Amino acid sequence: MQTTLIKEKTSQAVKILQEFGVDCWLTFTRESEICGDPNLVFLAPGHVTWPSAFIISADGRKKAIVGLYDKKAIEDVGAYDSVEGFITGIKQPLQDYLQELNPAQIAINFSRTSEICDGLTHGLYLTLYDLLKEIGLEGRLMSAEKIISALRERKSPVEIQAIKKAITITEEIFELVKTFIAVGKTEKQIADFMLAEVRKRGLTTAWSQSTCPAVFTGPDTAQAHYSPTDRKVEPGHILNMDFGVKVDGYCSDMQRTFYVLAPEETLVPDEVKKGFATIVRAIEEARKIMKPGIQGLEVDAVARKIVTDSGYQEFPHALGHQVGRFAHDGTALLGPAWEKYAEKPFQKLEMGMVFTLEPRLTVPGRGVVTIEEMVVVTEHGAEFLSHPQKELIVIS
Amino acid sequence: MQTTLIKEKTSQAVKILQEFGVDCWLTFTRESEICGDPNLVFLAPGHVTWPSAFIISADGRKKAIVGLYDKKAIEDVGAYDSVEGFITGIKQPLQDYLQELNPAQIAINFSRTSEICDGLTHGLYLTLYDLLKEIGLEGRLMSAEKIISALRERKSPVEIQAIKKAITITEEIFELVKTFIAVGKTEKQIADFMLAEVRKRGLTTAWSQSTCPAVFTGPDTAQAHYSPTDRKVEPGHILNMDFGVKVDGYCSDMQRTFYVLAPEETLVPDEVKKGFATIVRAIEEARKIMKPGIQGLEVDAVARKIVTDSGYQEFPHALGHQVGRFAHDGTALLGPAWEKYAEKPFQKLEMGMVFTLEPRLTVPGRGVVTIEEMVVVTEHGAEFLSHPQKELIVIS
Repeated sequence: MQTTLIKEKTSQAVKILQEFGVDCWLTFTRESEICGDPNLVFLAPGHVTWPSAFIISADGRKKAIVGLYDKKAIEDVGAYDSVEGFITGIKQPLQDYLQELNPAQIAINFSRTSEICDGLTHGLYLTLYDLLKEIGLEGRLMSAEKIISALRERKSPVEIQAIKKAITITEEIFELVKTFIAVGKTEKQIADFMLAEVRKRGLTTAWSQSTCPAVFTGPDTAQAHYSPTDRKVEPGHILNMDFGVKVDGYCSDMQRTFYVLAPEETLVPDEVKKGFATIVRAIEEARKIMKPGIQGLEVDAVARKIVTDSGYQEFPHALGHQVGRFAHDGTALLGPAWEKYAEKPFQKLEMGMVFTLEPRLTVPGRGVVTIEEMVVVTEHGAEFLSHPQKELIVIS
Repeated sequence: MQTTLIKEKTSQAVKILQEFGVDCWLTFTRESEICGDPNLVFLAPGHVTWPSAFIISADGRKKAIVGLYDKKAIEDVGAYDSVEGFITGIKQPLQDYLQELNPAQIAINFSRTSEICDGLTHGLYLTLYDLLKEIGLEGRLMSAEKIISALRERKSPVEIQAIKKAITITEEIFELVKTFIAVGKTEKQIADFMLAEVRKRGLTTAWSQSTCPAVFTGPDTAQAHYSPTDRKVEPGHILNMDFGVKVDGYCSDMQRTFYVLAPEETLVPDEVKKGFATIVRAIEEARKIMKPGIQGLEVDAVARKIVTDSGYQEFPHALGHQVGRFAHDGTALLGPAWEKYAEKPFQKLEMGMVFTLEPRLTVPGRGVVTIEEMVVVTEHGAEFLSHPQKELIVIS
């Protein structure tokens, strides 16, 4: 899988460089178990130790320069024309290669906007800058944001397939946990039940297990990004959870909302029903306007307006993010033009992008209603990858 | 454990700032599951999503500014005077706080030399620089290399304890695998046996499982940093392995050398014995000169000279690195003055630092002899944390 991925992605990178008219893309990283570049997975089969360079050119040349002991594993992949292994330092071989290549642009992995395109540390940037200055190439440096964004966002059928598998398993576990949730069960017990199902399938969670699944019951929770607690499920509570798994390196990220009937109740209370219907409608209307070329902030605005027009506070986060090798992946974002999102909401949607749609609102005294679906952008619009939640899951 | 660690380390940071005469240390990071700062573990109990700042001052003030949903988990730790949660962006609250603090120096996480001190990405650096420029503080920026190095290198008794536990378990598993290794077993089978022992103990390996343990048998291997293969143990082979586990977040990192007797052999061949004795002596002599104040390159030189004086090629890596939360941790390095190590070999040893000692040499036609021990620097010298291998482990 990893070998195929590296071959696919390095070839895709050549085409993207040609499309954007950029001569070469240089990934420069070291000690990748400590603070590695998130794109290394597309370039090498494991970790690298010493300062390492992966250089892909628009003319199709692919070169890796790495510490001697990291050479053989990378050579084995068969994706590079040449893998050079150094003993004392990367400077000379890297300068030599770049002088020979003499690229008009050298795209490197930094971005103010997009963390996924920002794997170059500042210390390594300074080292690289000086190394290029000595050979008069420092003026060719540019951000690789567009190249990496395209590489991560334009999902191949193999990548979509892995995401679909992850979604199927997530939905399966949501089905199973329905029968486990009951009054008196704690958030932790519910999470443990789900984690056992993940382990049974030999998988890992899509993000750190301490908050995956995140389980929130009732009106007094941290609402998001918090570990399950000993808080018990009570009648009249809304319970919501955020959960995903990783299959072949690709993630799902989904939320579901449950309502726990009170003993005297036979029907879900109106205010809960209204909140739920609002979220369902926000997702559906936002999905409908999604298509290649539209900006993320336009999509976010549709859902946000439905929520606020219905009398709820707006959600303090984006409507949706991309999903890929990380639960949060890619640059383009379905979000408002807030500072924390930088230029992400202004990016235009493209075919193959996989997004979440996850508006939320609070029903006072009950809890948080939130659904998170996953969609893929196609030529004609956005298609659900998940089976959208259209009804509250009622626990009685 | 995590709560205690954060309280300990943030308090230790205050004292280090005072010692170095630096007014404040600012860690700036985002989406830490993708490309987070390796020091976040000392500052927050989990991951952060949006741009987040952790500011520790020499006057003892501790402040965190994070996205709203990340606030509560950090507040719960009780290490900060104030945790602020923003919705739209960090700029205003961070500018306000820094203006109020008005520090003479703002140490941030970048370093050309040390990856462990280089968690700030270049994109985030640019964002931070602009944000500080608006309030006239950009000239106060400096590298936090010394502060972070001290924080990671001066190990507390609790940290040393965890490392000792990891070493004990590593030695236990080396003992067990002795009885498993036999002619005809493959490197993969040996590694799987060891991984099963790690799992039995509910632990994880010290670095990526694909190369931990690394197992190399005979003269034709990749020598290091390579996954175990289907290569079979043969009579007359030297077999070496590199292995470590993680206990309470702290690592061990050790290597052991085995010799597989040929059917006609009753004794280990002389050239293998000589190689092994050379490595044992190199470790012992290097350890003896270690003490606070000595430079790493002086220690490396002792072992390197013993190996080359005995007629072997010098090893293409440092004699030893520090160990901590990562198998490779800290800045000071027992290494030669090679470019890839930047300024690391020139750092002086300090009390509390935990180092590996891992010289190696090749015995032609047999394989690689390498031992990796772990030592801690004390007032009077370096003490073994591991039980040093003094005899070849002979498989018959």
